[in-house]
Amino acid sequence: MPEFRKDPVTGRWVIIATERARRPDAFVPEKRVRQEGFCPFCAGNESHTPEEVLAYRPSNTARNTPGWWLRVVPNKYPALVSNEPVKRSGDGMYDRINGMGVHEVVIETPDHDGHIGEMELHQVEEILWSYRDRSIEMRKDPRLEYVMIFKNHLREAGASLDHPHSQIIAMPIIPKRAQEELDGAQRYYDYKERCVYCDMIAQEYRDKVRVVLESEQFIAFLPYASRFPFECCVLPKEHASFFHDIQKNEVGDFARVLKETMHRLRIALDDPPFNWILHTTPLHEGENPYYHWHMEIIPKLTRPAGFEWGTGFYINPISPEDACLLLQADVEVKAGDSAAAG
Amino acid sequence: MPEFRKDPVTGRWVIIATERARRPDAFVPEKRVRQEGFCPFCAGNESHTPEEVLAYRPSNTARNTPGWWLRVVPNKYPALVSNEPVKRSGDGMYDRINGMGVHEVVIETPDHDGHIGEMELHQVEEILWSYRDRSIEMRKDPRLEYVMIFKNHLREAGASLDHPHSQIIAMPIIPKRAQEELDGAQRYYDYKERCVYCDMIAQEYRDKVRVVLESEQFIAFLPYASRFPFECCVLPKEHASFFHDIQKNEVGDFARVLKETMHRLRIALDDPPFNWILHTTPLHEGENPYYHWHMEIIPKLTRPAGFEWGTGFYINPISPEDACLLLQADVEVKAGDSAAAG
Repeated sequence: MPEFRKDPVTGRWVIIATERARRPDAFVPEKRVRQEGFCPFCAGNESHTPEEVLAYRPSNTARNTPGWWLRVVPNKYPALVSNEPVKRSGDGMYDRINGMGVHEVVIETPDHDGHIGEMELHQVEEILWSYRDRSIEMRKDPRLEYVMIFKNHLREAGASLDHPHSQIIAMPIIPKRAQEELDGAQRYYDYKERCVYCDMIAQEYRDKVRVVLESEQFIAFLPYASRFPFECCVLPKEHASFFHDIQKNEVGDFARVLKETMHRLRIALDDPPFNWILHTTPLHEGENPYYHWHMEIIPKLTRPAGFEWGTGFYINPISPEDACLLLQADVEVKAGDSAAAG
Repeated sequence: MPEFRKDPVTGRWVIIATERARRPDAFVPEKRVRQEGFCPFCAGNESHTPEEVLAYRPSNTARNTPGWWLRVVPNKYPALVSNEPVKRSGDGMYDRINGMGVHEVVIETPDHDGHIGEMELHQVEEILWSYRDRSIEMRKDPRLEYVMIFKNHLREAGASLDHPHSQIIAMPIIPKRAQEELDGAQRYYDYKERCVYCDMIAQEYRDKVRVVLESEQFIAFLPYASRFPFECCVLPKEHASFFHDIQKNEVGDFARVLKETMHRLRIALDDPPFNWILHTTPLHEGENPYYHWHMEIIPKLTRPAGFEWGTGFYINPISPEDACLLLQADVEVKAGDSAAAG
């Protein structure tokens, strides 16, 4: 049974998920065997995943059979389990919560070798729709406080399978990093009476030196205090607290900016490993004037070293302005480019 | 010129250190060329490092010549530079500080293939003495607020050279992670009127299931809310805020516990990459009843994935209790085992 444990000094929650454990010798670095050949996420292998909880597929195809262009299934090795009440307990001076939550996998395409930067636009839109649909579904469970949606691309970024996929984890706590952003944005709002992200967009729009690209409704830029080389942030230009409240006509625009950003990263850095993480407001809070949802994209180029872990800050060997020059190709994102499907 | 930049949402400072930058194609993952053959840290190659700022060597040998058993030199590719006043400035809504600070390298031994777990005990003591001596020296500079001492072992943990070495970075700000620990420990103290680390030691001593080993004055255990498999913490049993105030008769005891912990990690996990980080009180604060210095040791076994970056918390696939079983060999740390040298 997995559990949340709380660090008594910093208040940071950790998931101890022994269901995911392998034999100790599996922790020996660089000896992990790559699973070649068989892929449980490919079309035709649906019986090798847990049963789908959502699929976009023609209406004349049966559940858990081929024909889909996107599937969402429970994670076979979940970090959290859903059939539990939330129980908080003590262990001497320590605090824990049982590992209640939801852990799902979005199989983004039937194409084993697909890359987000090269996919059909409608397929990228479908991925975003699945994120939205599952978030809204999870919001119905009052036990769940936060939905974390992220993607690991390639082994070096933590992916255990090569087939394009994302993960969704919903949990009964608000994670520390999310809470820090909410608190920081609230403090800025209390002082300025403006959203800090809206202010950043305005300054990036003026400065131009960190903007990768923009469309009518979205902007992609490299943050002023980037922790990592080529770290990118994609935001809606209009203030909005919840990703899952995205308007239908914004999905295509977001997909275009995301796809083009990923395409440029792929070309500039030779298909780098990356993580993306969707940052949004906790499920049961209301729309607010201070927190602005966004997508964070982190290529994994430099290995994290001791300085980062120890201090909670980072040495970045390339300025976002220099990195941006390599991503500002002369490619404009065309409006009205949205796909028919989806 | 490197600079500190502040994230306007979370308040986290990042060092943008373009002096360390290489050509953009150097960021393409896994294409870094290993420098084989020549090692600037080996005895005889002293002219290939900046001039030593500290060395433990026989009195009949000259500076920057062989004979030393430990050398401290400025980092050839420093993240921060020392010959500057601390200047804070704005950049529109953003905040920055020029990259003033000190960045040094401790060359821990002349032995290119040495490992902390297998070194002579006196050599481990010398490393700790150098940490102390440099910290005390840096405290004299009123511009510097915090000294971060860390070690990256093997490339996978961020080491750019194989020769055993540590790094010391002193800077004009208190890093976010350090401040979080200080604040958390202060909150616990305000509520309980006890040090949270002293309480942890007491509970670990009773529970016994996470204690790797203990000696008269030090204890090594795996934290209850471990973020990483086999993460270890080494602390003095008696409360002390500053590492650099360590007593002479404690250095040998700390060295023994550290060496034995590293030895057991090396055996159990086949010489894993690791980072260690020394956590201590900011330079210009006083001794206090709530913060307790400690060494954090993090083997780099599982790659960090999206979930970690995005949320500020972690999924750990092995409980510290299970991991501890593999480190609790029947080796006792003998008291009175301190070395003559040093």
